[in-house]
Amino acid sequence: MATQTRERILDATAELFRRHGYTGTGLKQIVAAASAPFGSVYHHFPGGKEQLGAEVVLRSGRMYFELFELIFDAEPDPLEAVRGFFLGAGETLRVTDYADACPIGTVALEVASTNEPLRLATAEVFEDWIVRGAARFEGLGLEPAAARALIIQFVALLEGAFMLARAAKSLEAMERAAEAAVALTRAALQQSVDTAG
Amino acid sequence: MATQTRERILDATAELFRRHGYTGTGLKQIVAAASAPFGSVYHHFPGGKEQLGAEVVLRSGRMYFELFELIFDAEPDPLEAVRGFFLGAGETLRVTDYADACPIGTVALEVASTNEPLRLATAEVFEDWIVRGAARFEGLGLEPAAARALIIQFVALLEGAFMLARAAKSLEAMERAAEAAVALTRAALQQSVDTAG
Repeated sequence: MATQTRERILDATAELFRRHGYTGTGLKQIVAAASAPFGSVYHHFPGGKEQLGAEVVLRSGRMYFELFELIFDAEPDPLEAVRGFFLGAGETLRVTDYADACPIGTVALEVASTNEPLRLATAEVFEDWIVRGAARFEGLGLEPAAARALIIQFVALLEGAFMLARAAKSLEAMERAAEAAVALTRAALQQSVDTAG
Repeated sequence: MATQTRERILDATAELFRRHGYTGTGLKQIVAAASAPFGSVYHHFPGGKEQLGAEVVLRSGRMYFELFELIFDAEPDPLEAVRGFFLGAGETLRVTDYADACPIGTVALEVASTNEPLRLATAEVFEDWIVRGAARFEGLGLEPAAARALIIQFVALLEGAFMLARAAKSLEAMERAAEAAVALTRAALQQSVDTAG
């Protein structure tokens, strides 16, 4: 039961961060959305909103990467997997009226210059995505440096496209970002074949 | 004098938005940073923080695009201009300890689902960049659809790289985004030559 309350608080906070950001989310909103008593936040997160925020960022980052793994495990063609990941993110945006984008992107920008523990949590998530994504691209034959460059470009395109798509309430930017990610992946794979051959 | 106060308020607000975001910036901080009396905000911006926010977003967007124009006017090689824009943005980040990134990116994510007038202001800025940037790429021989796709990818890479670079306090993401933007521009220019030839 205690565990369930903790999970409900984490889920509700993640949802509120996506829509209102870190600064715009209050503890009162969190306990209301989680149907939890006010004191339960401090019971489970003695460090208050900052500790809760860091846990939500790390947990959301892990969950989001699992989605990446699922899509790449299910689709043998890496170009189709790249395209599928971007277009799937776009579809989720559309059906949520452009609210449900990256769970940590907004927080990352908000806290970068103002909250060092939270900045470090967002940096840890991005670096985890980059290291694990690079390992997957290395599995396709890319050199380590090329694999790391490609996943960084992938994440930058995705985060930038989330921003443009949410602002415009249009999928155009996500579709163009998908095309760029596919083109960059195709070029990197071709380069690795040329180098090996 | 009144005009000077208005300008000082706009400048101070833009600076605060870059570091603290829209939600994290209060009117008290704004008047203190602008050395302006509290009432002057409502004198110049009767709509309060929301009106001020929208004006700052539109004004910062125009100023930032002027920087793009300056760099592209000064550098005849478009690939060098693209690289120069990204690396210049990175250098500004570095010397400001990763605080001075896009003036509207953080606000865009914060308000996308919560403040419709401000969302529309951020969407207007992005669309203005896209239309004017596409016109410049059309001037290099790209078809309208290819030019629009390229500038959207350019802005997405830049905004995403700002996010990753600020979180990590490292220029790596900006350097990899520069390489991606150069590669996409080179491919688009080559495509336009092949089509014309």
